Amino acid sequence: MHRDYSVEMQRHCSLTHCLSCPRGLQGRVEVGPMPASSTPSTEQTLPYLGPWLEELEGHFKRYPSFQDVHVMIFVGFGFLMTFLKRYSFGAVGFNFLIAGFGLQWALLMQGWFHSLDPMDGKIKIGVESMINADFCVASCLIAYGAVLGKVSPVQLMVMTLFGVTLYAVEEYIILSLIHARDAGGSMVIHTFGAYYGLSISWMLYRPNLDQSKHRIGSVYQSDIFAMIGTLFLWMFWPSFNSAISDHGDGQHRAAINTYLSLAATVLTTIAISSLSQKTGKLDMVHIQNSTLAGGVAVGTAAEFMLMPYGSLIVGFCCGIISTLGYIYITPFMEKYLKIHDTCGIHNLHAMPGVIGGIVGAITAAAASEGVYGKEGLINTFDFTGEWKDMVPTRQGGHQAAGLCVALCFGIGGGIIVGCILRLPIWGDAPDNNCFDDEIYWELPEDEENNPPTVEYNNHMRNKAVTESNLSLERSQNLH
Amino acid sequence: MHRDYSVEMQRHCSLTHCLSCPRGLQGRVEVGPMPASSTPSTEQTLPYLGPWLEELEGHFKRYPSFQDVHVMIFVGFGFLMTFLKRYSFGAVGFNFLIAGFGLQWALLMQGWFHSLDPMDGKIKIGVESMINADFCVASCLIAYGAVLGKVSPVQLMVMTLFGVTLYAVEEYIILSLIHARDAGGSMVIHTFGAYYGLSISWMLYRPNLDQSKHRIGSVYQSDIFAMIGTLFLWMFWPSFNSAISDHGDGQHRAAINTYLSLAATVLTTIAISSLSQKTGKLDMVHIQNSTLAGGVAVGTAAEFMLMPYGSLIVGFCCGIISTLGYIYITPFMEKYLKIHDTCGIHNLHAMPGVIGGIVGAITAAAASEGVYGKEGLINTFDFTGEWKDMVPTRQGGHQAAGLCVALCFGIGGGIIVGCILRLPIWGDAPDNNCFDDEIYWELPEDEENNPPTVEYNNHMRNKAVTESNLSLERSQNLH
Amino acid sequence: MHRDYSVEMQRHCSLTHCLSCPRGLQGRVEVGPMPASSTPSTEQTLPYLGPWLEELEGHFKRYPSFQDVHVMIFVGFGFLMTFLKRYSFGAVGFNFLIAGFGLQWALLMQGWFHSLDPMDGKIKIGVESMINADFCVASCLIAYGAVLGKVSPVQLMVMTLFGVTLYAVEEYIILSLIHARDAGGSMVIHTFGAYYGLSISWMLYRPNLDQSKHRIGSVYQSDIFAMIGTLFLWMFWPSFNSAISDHGDGQHRAAINTYLSLAATVLTTIAISSLSQKTGKLDMVHIQNSTLAGGVAVGTAAEFMLMPYGSLIVGFCCGIISTLGYIYITPFMEKYLKIHDTCGIHNLHAMPGVIGGIVGAITAAAASEGVYGKEGLINTFDFTGEWKDMVPTRQGGHQAAGLCVALCFGIGGGIIVGCILRLPIWGDAPDNNCFDDEIYWELPEDEENNPPTVEYNNHMRNKAVTESNLSLERSQNLH
Repeated sequence: MHRDYSVEMQRHCSLTHCLSCPRGLQGRVEVGPMPASSTPSTEQTLPYLGPWLEELEGHFKRYPSFQDVHVMIFVGFGFLMTFLKRYSFGAVGFNFLIAGFGLQWALLMQGWFHSLDPMDGKIKIGVESMINADFCVASCLIAYGAVLGKVSPVQLMVMTLFGVTLYAVEEYIILSLIHARDAGGSMVIHTFGAYYGLSISWMLYRPNLDQSKHRIGSVYQSDIFAMIGTLFLWMFWPSFNSAISDHGDGQHRAAINTYLSLAATVLTTIAISSLSQKTGKLDMVHIQNSTLAGGVAVGTAAEFMLMPYGSLIVGFCCGIISTLGYIYITPFMEKYLKIHDTCGIHNLHAMPGVIGGIVGAITAAAASEGVYGKEGLINTFDFTGEWKDMVPTRQGGHQAAGLCVALCFGIGGGIIVGCILRLPIWGDAPDNNCFDDEIYWELPEDEENNPPTVEYNNHMRNKAVTESNLSLERSQNLH
Repeated sequence: MHRDYSVEMQRHCSLTHCLSCPRGLQGRVEVGPMPASSTPSTEQTLPYLGPWLEELEGHFKRYPSFQDVHVMIFVGFGFLMTFLKRYSFGAVGFNFLIAGFGLQWALLMQGWFHSLDPMDGKIKIGVESMINADFCVASCLIAYGAVLGKVSPVQLMVMTLFGVTLYAVEEYIILSLIHARDAGGSMVIHTFGAYYGLSISWMLYRPNLDQSKHRIGSVYQSDIFAMIGTLFLWMFWPSFNSAISDHGDGQHRAAINTYLSLAATVLTTIAISSLSQKTGKLDMVHIQNSTLAGGVAVGTAAEFMLMPYGSLIVGFCCGIISTLGYIYITPFMEKYLKIHDTCGIHNLHAMPGVIGGIVGAITAAAASEGVYGKEGLINTFDFTGEWKDMVPTRQGGHQAAGLCVALCFGIGGGIIVGCILRLPIWGDAPDNNCFDDEIYWELPEDEENNPPTVEYNNHMRNKAVTESNLSLERSQNLH
Repeated sequence: MHRDYSVEMQRHCSLTHCLSCPRGLQGRVEVGPMPASSTPSTEQTLPYLGPWLEELEGHFKRYPSFQDVHVMIFVGFGFLMTFLKRYSFGAVGFNFLIAGFGLQWALLMQGWFHSLDPMDGKIKIGVESMINADFCVASCLIAYGAVLGKVSPVQLMVMTLFGVTLYAVEEYIILSLIHARDAGGSMVIHTFGAYYGLSISWMLYRPNLDQSKHRIGSVYQSDIFAMIGTLFLWMFWPSFNSAISDHGDGQHRAAINTYLSLAATVLTTIAISSLSQKTGKLDMVHIQNSTLAGGVAVGTAAEFMLMPYGSLIVGFCCGIISTLGYIYITPFMEKYLKIHDTCGIHNLHAMPGVIGGIVGAITAAAASEGVYGKEGLINTFDFTGEWKDMVPTRQGGHQAAGLCVALCFGIGGGIIVGCILRLPIWGDAPDNNCFDDEIYWELPEDEENNPPTVEYNNHMRNKAVTESNLSLERSQNLH
């Protein structure tokens, strides 16, 4: 009557992998102690379901979320940055490079902090580690947005190397030491990543960048490519904010709150974009970027009881702030603060990230047993173990402390890494070659065989020649 | 030995959210009574699995389907309409606007009809509400296809506002009052949306549209962008038709039938497209649109026992009808019926939608216990509660009635909304500025810095100058 | 107390569909005998969970994987081939045609070999059949890569017809008769598909292809379109390699190993691409293709205990080999072996596929109970039934035999099909019209209304005329 569960356990246990294995591979890989709730008991029904439930919930169900986040990192961020007319290869290609490099380094760094098994010195990798690595990479890609087109691939690798390291430390401090909650990473990912990138951009300020300013801008097709990135980010943001939330309640709340906030942001972004122009025309830069601000700003509070109207209000406000940021703050920062921000990450990630941290702190401080229920409060804020005496108001303070840590790591780390990147050994582009794929990529020769243009231009050339010949002939005729 | 299930129940219960809350938030959010089948009983094993099963089945599993549908709405519809050479910003941008606005309004409208809790006056939101909101938005985006490039964003908002409202009423009548089944929305979404859009287009007929006709057409790259939309619609259509089917049997049938129907449509579309041209060449318009007709046409019958060969036949026929529609019916409608249909939604949504409704009625009427089994019949057609005495033949009649309601709401609603949109207060484009992003968007200046072209043209310009100089020199030499 | 499971069973049973039904539909569709492990026993708890577990595990959970694979087939392969400047319609359109046709034929062919129910002569279709059909189609799309732009749509249909048939036989021999394991299809899909395509390309060698060589190349925008394909392939490759693995352990291992291998490949590809050029510039061809080689090469071994460092090493090496292949081997093959390989599938699929087969054989031969555990070894290599006396070392030999079969079928089949395709009845393009959409597609007229270019060029034309006039005037002035 007892089904043998050793198979399940075994299958479950060997799910995890050993990435770095200083002591060498001794025997088969094993997991660390499982959380108490799923430890197979000796009772009749529980051993049957225990490991299977755990396996199903803890591993399998997150895989679709992982794929959604993965799409955001590679297609979302990659194509969002293709808007520059001559830097699309660099946008999508270097995004690929940073992400591919960063996630390996992040698996190692986060593994050392979070999933190192003290028993055998091995790091266990599962779907959650992969999601966390993608999150970590996201912060570096946000930073890339600030320096897009102005740094060399080698500088990007250095930036990513330090960025991932700083992220792992900062995340450990905020989530584990301070015990702040940050499901969608408003603080840990967006605030940190954005200020890290802005600080580096400030350190690498180029006074003569206006030599390349004719390349800062889009063309018709590059704007449509960028919309691919925007839409994949927008659509999968609910998965991003809910990817590592607790299953069930928290995860659903996170997805629904993010969905509502993003929907509200679209409307206010389009309204403000139109109102801010004398002609009432819409600006693609706002549509591509500010529509995403609502997702950033509910990152922390999404898994809390923010309530639908709360999400809509946050999204509503962030659409306004982010769009106005593109119109007023970005030019101001470039002119007076000497910070050139290619993609406007200050408006898309920095400000909404800080707002998200503050909203999270307020929502946490306002939590009560009446709204969450006793168990719900404990589950949502993880008031267990050494934090079992925590109360919501104090949790609010911890959230605020987490935001400060993210800001300090972002700005401080960015200044230090910026100093390193100012060393004249990294092969960055001269001021008059910024935002240009030419220096890092073998570009196709468009001159001869551009499909729609070639015939026309050939035609043109003949025309020009004809005209010239005509002029020649005419000039001959004149005599 | 009894595990405490209050946590699970609680987590489950607070999954739902309160969107509109006329009586204010009193205590924590609660769900309405759960379906009897999952009510925790007092027996030993059932209370354990009951709520968990329910949670897993009812909420979690639909999330990947929701994301697939979400991609169809934003990337699928958005990019499908980018085919116009100068209206790609409007296609993808206004699609974003309509969808972002429509889904908020749809959550409210559908909430009032379907998920309003009589106990506390609150609307509960879950993953299914989000899928239904996306469905509702789909009907408005279909309607947008008919008027693409000819209306202003404000008109689109008005169209969406009324469209969502009409949809909610029509859906309530068809699904709840008439008790027709329509998993993939052949009637509710496609027939309604298409006739709604066509009626509006008829009311807004512009006799002098040929002033803009040089902009009705694609360029090489815009056709490739449109293929992104086509492919994402095509690939995720099985998720669309199965997203709200009953879990298990019905959902699988819906996905597999749709998959087969779509595969058959691709072949006949390409065959007819080639055969219809004297040169045997393929037309991208057909590939982009008609390949999707099979998915529309199995929308109603997909969850029934249509059988694989049934799906293949439906797909086969719809590929032919839809492609011939583009070749013969669209020009006819424009010339004689004064209905200009920019995207050809009559061929992609209206005709296949009506076919889908008819196929659904026939399949329902032909259902028997021999094929479905007693329980299967009850589950598939939901012959429970007040409909427990229903028989398949009568269900067929109800399906047909549902189709008529969808047609009436589409045509009637479209004419009324069309009248409203004819008021000269909405700022629509003049006849010679249709299909042009110029009037609503800040366009990048392509003249100076078009990446591939600029160098060539600079080069060309020099070349032209050189040629001219040459001609000059030659003309000099001649003397 | 006993819940009635007949409903579940019934729902479960009718999940499958009857595709080909030579004996006609008699009563309702039924499944064959279920695997012993899930057969409902007479005990109290098991009948409750048995069918439901089976349903959940066997059918539902694979649906997201199916959608990921589906995206790879239609968007991934389709857009990867759009890199040619004048053959983007053909790339994405004929990819659509091949896939739509191939998957129907594959459902039939694979059904006859694998899921034909001897009881009623019906083929049962489920989510796994759809994944397998997509896999089968993948091998034909790989073959298409070798002949891209050089064959007619009719030839492609013939190629697909025979390709799918050969695949079904080869897969049956390798997986069922030889009992080799090949979760991600390094041998069955990639090696077979690539050599099939290369052999056909060799048979169809065109000595005068250099008449079209000005069209073999990309333009700026076509390279970005191709990156869409690359990224969707790259991101979803872990789903591809794990889609039909055993649930739980094996599936997770497959996903994680693939993810790591792909990440390593990105780095070495970019490094070698830069190092191989004197200027240190990156080549888009390598980024688009070689970054995927790591996913091909862990296809067989992904579900084994390859260990993370094993995956990283495989990915590392394949990035180097594949990139060097593009630089040295492709030109060599074209010049000396008379094999023209448009997309370089020899570097992306053939070599990594063979490497994957070898790595799989070694990993299988090195398997031991110490690493996998007794049950794990049996589960991973399916040492059950008639293979229950199999040992890992012998399994390694069977893996190697499987690789040989794939090679033989690929090369042999390709030569035979190539002979058929050489018949002068298929309407292929003349040598000077290869890689040109013009002959198979109605192309939009770009000359008059190309949005960004037209104005500029009109402007240019005036400019050119002005210059000419200037020269005219100047030439006049000179006299």
